[in-house]
Amino acid sequence: MAKPKSWVLTDVEKNIWAETIFVGHEELGVPDCTVSKRTLRGGLRDGVDLVEVTNGDLSFSVLPTRGMGIWKGSYRGMSLGWNAPVKGPVNPKLVNLLDRGGLGWLQGFDEWIVRCGLDSNGAPGEDSVLDNNGNPITVNLTLHGKIANLPAHYVEIQADPDARTVSIIGQVDESALFCPGLRLKTTITTAPVSNRLTLVDEVSNLKAIPSELELLYHCNFGGPFLEGNSKLLAPIVEAAPRDSRAGEGIKAFDTYLPPTAGYIEQVYFYDLAEDRAHQTLAALRNASGDTAVVLRYNKSQMPCLTQWKNTAALKDGYVTGLEPGTNYPNKKRFERDKGRVPRIEPGKSYGCELTIEICSSREQVAAIEAEVAKLQAGVKPAIHQRPHPKFSQT
Amino acid sequence: MAKPKSWVLTDVEKNIWAETIFVGHEELGVPDCTVSKRTLRGGLRDGVDLVEVTNGDLSFSVLPTRGMGIWKGSYRGMSLGWNAPVKGPVNPKLVNLLDRGGLGWLQGFDEWIVRCGLDSNGAPGEDSVLDNNGNPITVNLTLHGKIANLPAHYVEIQADPDARTVSIIGQVDESALFCPGLRLKTTITTAPVSNRLTLVDEVSNLKAIPSELELLYHCNFGGPFLEGNSKLLAPIVEAAPRDSRAGEGIKAFDTYLPPTAGYIEQVYFYDLAEDRAHQTLAALRNASGDTAVVLRYNKSQMPCLTQWKNTAALKDGYVTGLEPGTNYPNKKRFERDKGRVPRIEPGKSYGCELTIEICSSREQVAAIEAEVAKLQAGVKPAIHQRPHPKFSQT
Amino acid sequence: MAKPKSWVLTDVEKNIWAETIFVGHEELGVPDCTVSKRTLRGGLRDGVDLVEVTNGDLSFSVLPTRGMGIWKGSYRGMSLGWNAPVKGPVNPKLVNLLDRGGLGWLQGFDEWIVRCGLDSNGAPGEDSVLDNNGNPITVNLTLHGKIANLPAHYVEIQADPDARTVSIIGQVDESALFCPGLRLKTTITTAPVSNRLTLVDEVSNLKAIPSELELLYHCNFGGPFLEGNSKLLAPIVEAAPRDSRAGEGIKAFDTYLPPTAGYIEQVYFYDLAEDRAHQTLAALRNASGDTAVVLRYNKSQMPCLTQWKNTAALKDGYVTGLEPGTNYPNKKRFERDKGRVPRIEPGKSYGCELTIEICSSREQVAAIEAEVAKLQAGVKPAIHQRPHPKFSQT
Repeated sequence: MAKPKSWVLTDVEKNIWAETIFVGHEELGVPDCTVSKRTLRGGLRDGVDLVEVTNGDLSFSVLPTRGMGIWKGSYRGMSLGWNAPVKGPVNPKLVNLLDRGGLGWLQGFDEWIVRCGLDSNGAPGEDSVLDNNGNPITVNLTLHGKIANLPAHYVEIQADPDARTVSIIGQVDESALFCPGLRLKTTITTAPVSNRLTLVDEVSNLKAIPSELELLYHCNFGGPFLEGNSKLLAPIVEAAPRDSRAGEGIKAFDTYLPPTAGYIEQVYFYDLAEDRAHQTLAALRNASGDTAVVLRYNKSQMPCLTQWKNTAALKDGYVTGLEPGTNYPNKKRFERDKGRVPRIEPGKSYGCELTIEICSSREQVAAIEAEVAKLQAGVKPAIHQRPHPKFSQT
Repeated sequence: MAKPKSWVLTDVEKNIWAETIFVGHEELGVPDCTVSKRTLRGGLRDGVDLVEVTNGDLSFSVLPTRGMGIWKGSYRGMSLGWNAPVKGPVNPKLVNLLDRGGLGWLQGFDEWIVRCGLDSNGAPGEDSVLDNNGNPITVNLTLHGKIANLPAHYVEIQADPDARTVSIIGQVDESALFCPGLRLKTTITTAPVSNRLTLVDEVSNLKAIPSELELLYHCNFGGPFLEGNSKLLAPIVEAAPRDSRAGEGIKAFDTYLPPTAGYIEQVYFYDLAEDRAHQTLAALRNASGDTAVVLRYNKSQMPCLTQWKNTAALKDGYVTGLEPGTNYPNKKRFERDKGRVPRIEPGKSYGCELTIEICSSREQVAAIEAEVAKLQAGVKPAIHQRPHPKFSQT
Repeated sequence: MAKPKSWVLTDVEKNIWAETIFVGHEELGVPDCTVSKRTLRGGLRDGVDLVEVTNGDLSFSVLPTRGMGIWKGSYRGMSLGWNAPVKGPVNPKLVNLLDRGGLGWLQGFDEWIVRCGLDSNGAPGEDSVLDNNGNPITVNLTLHGKIANLPAHYVEIQADPDARTVSIIGQVDESALFCPGLRLKTTITTAPVSNRLTLVDEVSNLKAIPSELELLYHCNFGGPFLEGNSKLLAPIVEAAPRDSRAGEGIKAFDTYLPPTAGYIEQVYFYDLAEDRAHQTLAALRNASGDTAVVLRYNKSQMPCLTQWKNTAALKDGYVTGLEPGTNYPNKKRFERDKGRVPRIEPGKSYGCELTIEICSSREQVAAIEAEVAKLQAGVKPAIHQRPHPKFSQT
């Protein structure tokens, strides 16, 4: 077995930096695939690095400058992602996380897949941390944490001609003196004409003291997957609306509205069934049932699924987020109280794996529905009509 | 009539980016005019784009990186602008609007003409906005809003050989999910050996829900226009000092001091007379009356004029601002209560047009004085000696 | 005597900018020395300028982008600096000083020598400043001030073949309208195979009104200088622990622990003896006494010495700071009350000079010990066992 081929694009320790690169399928040794990298210029995107991958059917772009998030994708002409009110990708230098009462993260939010974390994610809120003197101080955690606005210090293209895979590898540190020290190592992999993309992430604690982790994958979809009467497919064990606004829509929690001017977001929290290997899935199916996007992940890694319905007008951001995570995106204090904030011991790491799969035929969608049904066999979903204290502050 | 010639310098959607450009008068097809663009390096200005325009007599520089503001100008050797304590232009990446209790905007403030807005301008203050859940939250609006620290995603040079004009066109978005979505489109135009510069701005609401607008043109002048015994010329209908400090100087509101160490700013709010087409003007005339700078604008677009006197020592910023706007630069809450915050319906826009004109002879200045007198004919100005509740919080 | 040779790398006023430069010893006219400059790419360091100087034995790197701080050094293979949890140098565009309750400065903190100031340094805290209206407003000063996150607008290499010295000169402004206006001019000098590095700094008040100054040199050391049983050498007249935590360690204030997981910082404040020219010194000596690093400075310029012990685990930042300054790094309000905030009159400046010297033999270390002993002759150090109101809020 030959060693994978490697192109290091960024390695700050070794002063490696590739301004632009194009690697074709012959050079990769993997048919149908190409990888390119360039730095965007102008506007909010000035200075943002973009790594573009295609496998023939599926293409996607990775943002080293924004914590190795995935900006946009497309599969056989179908758009993966959404039309955000801000036209990004936005350079973190122009994002002030503290703005608008801790909602500044929104100024940079237009990705298809964006990680929320690592020390915290979820709603802005006060938390108690230790300062340099070891004394507890109250700080204001900002929406969805820092990781999406931190640049990668290491970026590499790997191609494995034997395994016929192409991967983008990145490392991003969220670390400072007297602060948590967490390193994200991500490997984003696809294969020739595959309808799949896999993120294998490992977050390690760089410090000699234990660290907390909150990690959530904010996977966002507009059309063609999202439309009036699109449906959420998932092997639900238990579900609850986040708040009274979401409670209003609980009867139709798994069905989506068409673009609706003035719509206020509705968020639902889920506990899903899993197989013996703890694998589970959640999918967004279009109205007619001939396309869907599927998220596969491991419930032992990410026990929580959040569904964000934001079926506002197209111009205001018509989007739904399917968000597997270590926790629900409530204030960190609440999640900690509920035991949903994992702890990473010094030198240890926490792994999360997420596969995104696109179905483009009725048969594929039916197979997903069958898979969901099988996982759910014998389970009577408990659907709370109102917010439930297990899931959210009520 | 031939189509105007066009050079697109930045268009992020089309991945267009011109690192540097020089377009001479022959290429423009407009005599005496040239346009050039480069990116500044080093210090606070590192990465700031500068577009320089000359028409033979008048030259000025536009800052795409700072919301299409106008950094500096000069007319027949006279400096247009002021000597700010910060030596800019300052890259927005180094400006933290939240600093110093919401006064961080000052860290980047050294322009000749800078727009304040778009969602808000004026003094920092609490306001109530809707969060993602549709619930009102209290946020701290920062001094003079965001637009001056947002980069243009589109920049174009246009030259019209038939009309003999040269324009710089730019688009800047102030938009994000759950935030206002406003787009500024500006066209900044001059003509061969003209003493005029015109800004034609259009702010459109990108969202499907109504939006508010606060837009003010902070036009700043030091010498040679500002000096001891310089005068404000304007067809005043009503005027009031902003606060008791300004009240101290109400007897001489229209006259300026020489550089005065320790001077504390005095601000006056004006309601001006207008012609039948709603056009009005305000001017700053030097002491001897042989030079002046004139602002012409439409009162139906910008009903409010603010005069900012800051005749401090030269080193501390000897400057006056003449500031036509949709509102006075009070806290937004106050202006909203007074009905001075326009609302833009979805898909609609709000236009503002401002012409700056330089007078360099006694005759030209006298003509302006006559024009002001004519507009004011029959009007007895109401000059409030103290702050008045119509204009400011008293 | 020939004029020194000069290479201007940055001068924003004259549009001078050197992307990269290498000046060898022949060109410098100074044996053994070289100077080079480049801009770092990727990760947190993207866009940071680095000026590297070697003199044959001693090398160090200056950071124009970070206020002319000194990133790292090395002397005959010994590392000068420390291993910070954040891998810098960090571009200020990614540092939000307001983060984490005013502790955001830590996100960029990994330098060997970093200036804290200029308007304020020390712990975050409320202070009263005058706003544009001349009214006192309460602002939150952030940890260690702004200067380390401001870029130089002027950078020059100077070589003096006659004096056999090489200097890096830089100017950094901390200035804005209605804010203090302070200019740092630094000259960082070394000589062929010297074990010394000298910073000659001058802070001038650019404004026409008086200004305050807080300036402290945060000089940070890990191994090989810092290890278990390393010692602080200084001619102590009086010393006090900053707080009760430091009080716990007062018996061994001058001795260091090996890396100790979970260690909470201990800070001690010192008043040192001086010679007739007001010169004093402080040193960090390794356990066996064959290496040391020495700080020499003038007590009339910097009356206060702070020792920061942070002997945490290697991964958490095993480091000590020796910090001569105009003040102790308490909240500015406290220091002002104690009369330790110098005032700079308009047009005047305040000078600080600091020499760093590396001892690499038992003889050199012994000489330093003798020098300390001589300065301390006849002085019985007053070591307060508990925090003392003269030094810190108790």
